[in-house]
Amino acid sequence: MWHRIAHTLKRKYVNVSHTAKQIGIVHVLTMEGHQVRALYDFTGEPGTAELSITAGEMLTVMRDNVGDGWCEGFNQSGKSGLFPAAYVQNVDTTASNAMTSSQQSSGDYWDDEWDDDSEIGQTQAYVPQQQQQQHMIQLPQHHTIDYGDSVSMHTIHSVIPERPIPNIPKKNNKFSTLIKSGEDSFLLGMRVANVPENEKIYIEEVEGGHYRWSSRGESYNCVVTSPKKESKLKGLKSFIVYQLTPTFNNIQVSRRYKHFDWLHERLEEKYCFIPIPPLPDKQISGRYDEQFIEHRRTQLQEFVDYVCRHPVLARSRVWEHFITCTDEKRWKAGKRQAEKDELLGVNYFYAVQCPETILDVIKVEIQTDAFSRFISGLDPVVKNFMAMAVDQTKKSLLYKREFQKIGQSFSALSHALEGDDRSRGRLTYALKITGDAYNDIGKLYEEQPKFDWEPLSDKFHIYRGIISSFPDVISIHKTAVQKRKDYEKLVSEHKMEPQQLRDLSHRTDVIARALLAEETHFQTEQEVHLTQAMKTHLAEQIKFYQKIVDKLREALNAYEG
Amino acid sequence: MWHRIAHTLKRKYVNVSHTAKQIGIVHVLTMEGHQVRALYDFTGEPGTAELSITAGEMLTVMRDNVGDGWCEGFNQSGKSGLFPAAYVQNVDTTASNAMTSSQQSSGDYWDDEWDDDSEIGQTQAYVPQQQQQQHMIQLPQHHTIDYGDSVSMHTIHSVIPERPIPNIPKKNNKFSTLIKSGEDSFLLGMRVANVPENEKIYIEEVEGGHYRWSSRGESYNCVVTSPKKESKLKGLKSFIVYQLTPTFNNIQVSRRYKHFDWLHERLEEKYCFIPIPPLPDKQISGRYDEQFIEHRRTQLQEFVDYVCRHPVLARSRVWEHFITCTDEKRWKAGKRQAEKDELLGVNYFYAVQCPETILDVIKVEIQTDAFSRFISGLDPVVKNFMAMAVDQTKKSLLYKREFQKIGQSFSALSHALEGDDRSRGRLTYALKITGDAYNDIGKLYEEQPKFDWEPLSDKFHIYRGIISSFPDVISIHKTAVQKRKDYEKLVSEHKMEPQQLRDLSHRTDVIARALLAEETHFQTEQEVHLTQAMKTHLAEQIKFYQKIVDKLREALNAYEG
Repeated sequence: MWHRIAHTLKRKYVNVSHTAKQIGIVHVLTMEGHQVRALYDFTGEPGTAELSITAGEMLTVMRDNVGDGWCEGFNQSGKSGLFPAAYVQNVDTTASNAMTSSQQSSGDYWDDEWDDDSEIGQTQAYVPQQQQQQHMIQLPQHHTIDYGDSVSMHTIHSVIPERPIPNIPKKNNKFSTLIKSGEDSFLLGMRVANVPENEKIYIEEVEGGHYRWSSRGESYNCVVTSPKKESKLKGLKSFIVYQLTPTFNNIQVSRRYKHFDWLHERLEEKYCFIPIPPLPDKQISGRYDEQFIEHRRTQLQEFVDYVCRHPVLARSRVWEHFITCTDEKRWKAGKRQAEKDELLGVNYFYAVQCPETILDVIKVEIQTDAFSRFISGLDPVVKNFMAMAVDQTKKSLLYKREFQKIGQSFSALSHALEGDDRSRGRLTYALKITGDAYNDIGKLYEEQPKFDWEPLSDKFHIYRGIISSFPDVISIHKTAVQKRKDYEKLVSEHKMEPQQLRDLSHRTDVIARALLAEETHFQTEQEVHLTQAMKTHLAEQIKFYQKIVDKLREALNAYEG
Repeated sequence: MWHRIAHTLKRKYVNVSHTAKQIGIVHVLTMEGHQVRALYDFTGEPGTAELSITAGEMLTVMRDNVGDGWCEGFNQSGKSGLFPAAYVQNVDTTASNAMTSSQQSSGDYWDDEWDDDSEIGQTQAYVPQQQQQQHMIQLPQHHTIDYGDSVSMHTIHSVIPERPIPNIPKKNNKFSTLIKSGEDSFLLGMRVANVPENEKIYIEEVEGGHYRWSSRGESYNCVVTSPKKESKLKGLKSFIVYQLTPTFNNIQVSRRYKHFDWLHERLEEKYCFIPIPPLPDKQISGRYDEQFIEHRRTQLQEFVDYVCRHPVLARSRVWEHFITCTDEKRWKAGKRQAEKDELLGVNYFYAVQCPETILDVIKVEIQTDAFSRFISGLDPVVKNFMAMAVDQTKKSLLYKREFQKIGQSFSALSHALEGDDRSRGRLTYALKITGDAYNDIGKLYEEQPKFDWEPLSDKFHIYRGIISSFPDVISIHKTAVQKRKDYEKLVSEHKMEPQQLRDLSHRTDVIARALLAEETHFQTEQEVHLTQAMKTHLAEQIKFYQKIVDKLREALNAYEG
């Protein structure tokens, strides 16, 4: 289906861009988008990139969220631009909710390019269509687009992305490779790794037969602050720099999204038995850069907070390098070192230190099976919850509109009553105040999501990422358990020495304990941080409705003597 | 345009009702409807009259409000049924808002028939489509539909009205007739009416050169209570009876909507210089009879309150007969007498008693012109306000849905977390409570309109009716002023005796004073009752949002130890 749509879009776009073709720039596009239907009329502001839409009209969305609730796409006559996401409704039956659709039209590679050092050219921030057309015309002919596999430069900055990335999660690929290449070697004890002291991680038993990661050192935080735009190559290349300050040294370091992305890759490579919290989605910056960047900052803070709270990740060498290194040279050296690190994937199980006791096989199997079922039951629910929170964030624009309509009705009535020749001061004044109050409530609705639904959906972005990584983590243990069963059979058939089974069994127990420790951590996260997120959300909602009450009270007072 | 649509609909409907045609019932329809577009999916409950609709689908609405926010209409394949009004959006470009459209597809004659003594057959309450089809099939062939001008019996009870009434306000017709036939006779003094003492009405001067109707007797109220279904003809005919109890005698009388309608006609005939408050729109009863009837009762109460507050109307003989007569015979005699009353229309100016002073012509003209402009400026604003209030009433269903979606997400999360093997009692419990709280808030949204937007729109129904009647009232005065100018010219040309001009001038002043007195009354209404309505509305809104705050607080408390 995607291919059919892409084909149609391609034809449409080629028709529109005939100006570009005429001057010799072949602008071949391969695009994916999804169909939506406009629910409301929206009149784009003239002279801006806004696209006017009419209720009922079919539109193709190329980018679900370009910031601040705006969508980017084009209408049936091929005209493209921005329109409020809340004003359209998905008609793709395969996408059951807003979340799914926004994931489908993934814009992952954008930020990479937008923010990539290797790119020569201006920032990929939104360029209105008109300017863009001019821009294209001015381009010399030798600039063509590279359609190779690698992420390469391209200089034609279209609002509509030319090269969609395949929708396969990076992580799964990596995991299956790691499991294939490394697990057996650990399980079979084929490689006795030399684990330096500072790489060792410890698991301890707690009451009720549970296990947890030992906390080494004091816990700390790291605040992400002051995102600012910087540029290099004499302004040709601009990017956003975030400041990170760990509480243990209070020394600030500057990091870009691409650094976070690099770090994230290292953590995923190294810790196959720990679900790594996801980074915020890569997105093209919307029109309202400041709001977008500020939101990105809070999302990165969520990521940083999760890492800091995790007993293993918070002590990770690559992480410590990331949050402490201020020197450019040392940064590069540490970077190279981390990339060469061989103590990763299943090999890293060699670093796990745990009690030497033997685990109850049956008990562990029951426990991990239950956890596996729990995770797979939780996954769709959390996805749905996240979609709901994102949907509520978008709906705020609609609510604002409703309250502004109410406000306008009151203001208009006040104004019309003023036209009377007899003084009716009190009523016209009170109606005006009422109109203002409803208008203000509209504004409150617009501002509110960043206090309640947005933080909650950011929290759920992390939570959802962790949950969706768990099956891979669980599967490592499952593979080990299966291998042990195979060995048991071989031993019972006298085809293998019992010592080999005992060694394997011991290593399987290490994997099991790592899973149980991570399960414990996940549950603590839920009990403490999910609870906290819910409380914050409710407290903000209460404040919000209380503000509405206050606004209305003010209006009511205006009617009293 | 209406004809074209009606023609299309007719063809469509005939296609659908081929079952009826096959058994020999010619079911010719003349219908009007307006086009809407579905904004949301709605799944009709199987086995009911609900029609499933899909977002984006075009529908033809035959009846905007069949009670409780439901619309009646059919889809493009001719299937008809009920769907929530809040789920569709008007696409008729001539109808600028919900209000206009609901007026256009007026269902005025329905209630008449539903509630008409002369009709033999069952009540016109909603019959689900399936039953209806059966009903049609069982009908003997000699039942055909009378397409004459008069409202006549018809026994095929279709959900879709067969005979649309022309969309011309009754009142304008009557007024123009009255002005033509009667005004000259009063102005020219051709008929000296014998006005009995109890018909006389008095105008007094108040400070600032204003005039007002004198209040005779004590003010009183009259409560409309206990609507109940009654039937006659052994249950073949049923109708609703409302109880009216005036405070001055505390004796209850029973009246039906058709009695109100009769009264309203009498008042409009008699008082051409007083805008008569409108009755609630005639409507077919919806599925939720009780709610519909209860709302109808409050609307009739608004009408009764307005009449009781008006110094002239509250002392009107026909009104007193209406609220006091308990005896069937006396009721019929009084009814006949009122219908024969000749002291009506402009003739009733003979009954107006005012100061004998001469009015300042220029001052009065400035004053009435200003008032005329004021009214014509107020008219669209009040219409818009009313449309907004009606719209908000409808939107409550959408808001309810939103909050229920939120509630379900929390409940689902609570349920999914319960699946875990370790006890996480506090969080799952708190999430369940949060889900319940949002669900409850959804219910609050559904119930709320009857406390705030519905009463406000009922108040504005009256207000709008009064405002739209004023131009006719003002035009009587304008005609008189013009006539005086003509006479002045004739006198200056010595073609008329000055005494004739003086007589006419005196009578014009009577008309002017009646207009000024009515203007005063209108302004008092606004200052006192509009202000009160706004205060009540705001107070109810405050209560509502306070309830939301309370619900959320309850949920938040569930997270605390």
